[in-house]
Amino acid sequence: MNLKSFEARMENYRKRINDRLSRVVVKQSPVSFYDPVRYVLEGGGKRIRPILVILACKAVGGAEDDCIDAAVAVEILHNFTLVHDDIMDNDDLRRSRQTVHKKWDEATAILAGDGLVALAYHYLLKTKTNEITEIANIFTTGIIDLCEGQALDKEFERRFDIDMDQYLLMVEKKTARLLMISSEIGVIIGGGNQMQREFLSDFSRHLGNAFQIQDDLLDMEPTSGKTFGSDIKQKKRTILFVHALTYADQHIKNQLWNIMHQPEITDDDVFKVRDLFEASGTLKFARHEVESRMNQAQQILSPLAPSDSRDDLNLLLKWILERKS
Amino acid sequence: MNLKSFEARMENYRKRINDRLSRVVVKQSPVSFYDPVRYVLEGGGKRIRPILVILACKAVGGAEDDCIDAAVAVEILHNFTLVHDDIMDNDDLRRSRQTVHKKWDEATAILAGDGLVALAYHYLLKTKTNEITEIANIFTTGIIDLCEGQALDKEFERRFDIDMDQYLLMVEKKTARLLMISSEIGVIIGGGNQMQREFLSDFSRHLGNAFQIQDDLLDMEPTSGKTFGSDIKQKKRTILFVHALTYADQHIKNQLWNIMHQPEITDDDVFKVRDLFEASGTLKFARHEVESRMNQAQQILSPLAPSDSRDDLNLLLKWILERKS
Repeated sequence: MNLKSFEARMENYRKRINDRLSRVVVKQSPVSFYDPVRYVLEGGGKRIRPILVILACKAVGGAEDDCIDAAVAVEILHNFTLVHDDIMDNDDLRRSRQTVHKKWDEATAILAGDGLVALAYHYLLKTKTNEITEIANIFTTGIIDLCEGQALDKEFERRFDIDMDQYLLMVEKKTARLLMISSEIGVIIGGGNQMQREFLSDFSRHLGNAFQIQDDLLDMEPTSGKTFGSDIKQKKRTILFVHALTYADQHIKNQLWNIMHQPEITDDDVFKVRDLFEASGTLKFARHEVESRMNQAQQILSPLAPSDSRDDLNLLLKWILERKS
Repeated sequence: MNLKSFEARMENYRKRINDRLSRVVVKQSPVSFYDPVRYVLEGGGKRIRPILVILACKAVGGAEDDCIDAAVAVEILHNFTLVHDDIMDNDDLRRSRQTVHKKWDEATAILAGDGLVALAYHYLLKTKTNEITEIANIFTTGIIDLCEGQALDKEFERRFDIDMDQYLLMVEKKTARLLMISSEIGVIIGGGNQMQREFLSDFSRHLGNAFQIQDDLLDMEPTSGKTFGSDIKQKKRTILFVHALTYADQHIKNQLWNIMHQPEITDDDVFKVRDLFEASGTLKFARHEVESRMNQAQQILSPLAPSDSRDDLNLLLKWILERKS
């Protein structure tokens, strides 16, 4: 079970999902609705959430064919959140392409997002299972949590008193929840029991939280595939920022505040912020958090019966958390 | 069965629905999410769609208690469309109050609308029925149709070659469809058969289309509760406009075009447009369309077994189409 064959398997899953996604939109008209929906679904991406559905389903003995529509559903749902979040955050680029509201306009992007939610339910409801109400309820509660997470994220942008618990609650809702519901839905379709559902949900919670912290760290790496310091430049609350403003010396806090209050933040400033995060132990703390959540996630899977899919879940965890972009 | 006791019964339904709606939001935080959602759900309205669910359910022998959650679900869904449509149409007022994006901001309104969709599904899924997948599919297809209708409406604003069929297709998707799915869901929960479902769906199609034409007509009445000529002032395509531009003399068409191309349209201009619509037979055509659809809707119900709810559906039809605001 080496990493190379793992990547080949992931690529196969991705191909199958992308193939389905390319066939979600069958109609042409109205073009102002279906063109942007198609554009979004064909925009690529790592497809982590649908792969989680499939691996969770298979890890409890289920079949890929039974969960493929639900897998497609969570990916469509994820894309809905990206389209609407990009409007709210006023982001111009997504996956190296123009965001929908930039390429078209805001009204078009709002409507495309709304349509994606409905298409997500449409695919979820194709699933043949006696547990359809349960699955649809998990999906629905997940959307409400995503909304709460996004609301907290926007509220935090205007506040300077966010503590670590509040920050982590926001991350869990905004990032981890969709990964959690992906695994839960996979387990239920696969016929797993309540304990397996909780194990795989917890696995995804740790994965999601670690993923977000890793994302915050990558933002500070000039060599990563991301735009250097984009979070800092947008004055976003990241775990690094929250940690430093809680635990750093007053001297460091003051310097951070000064930079964050500048009208514009340059690459040089980002390097300075990075040094301040180093001096306050913030980077070390964040790296340790990623490591610790990764270990917790791995341990959670150990009571599950051994299977190729269980191993793939662990490899997926490593692959995600060791990525450089 | 007089109109007065009908209105008392409607008021009872409305109270029950409003009571449920006031308890949809149980959480306080995040305030930037739940405050606007609560604001929308407590904003009042005629509650026609949930009443349709209840009457359709009861008309086929079902019980009000069995369909009340689904009734609340369609009303929440309707409110979602209002919140997002108001952003897209840049409307400042809704039910005599500020729209969400005016009272808060666009990001807040986008998110509140997204949350309302999820809350709508949450209520729909509370329904105890073996047909939950069927009901959820009708609901989901309805949302996609609503999106298509809104997209067509926005596309038509930039086009001048809309014919009557295209216009009526847009109205059916944007206005009639939600009424149709309300009745269909009511019939299914009430245990009705396929024929009853089609009858009540058709009843609501005619009701919805007539309702929209009536709305277009009311816009031209200075004595109605609506702002006089707001459609004309916003240069919206209404059935009156589409009819006149298709069937009026060239002389009338030219005058209409001249007014519609003015940078601003005054009350005097609206009176002029009204006279042109009178001269071209457009008002007569529209009044006849309302009448004819109302008759068709009434006839559709006649094969249904007599019941108080069947009578109420007919009274509801009259009440809606004879309203002055």
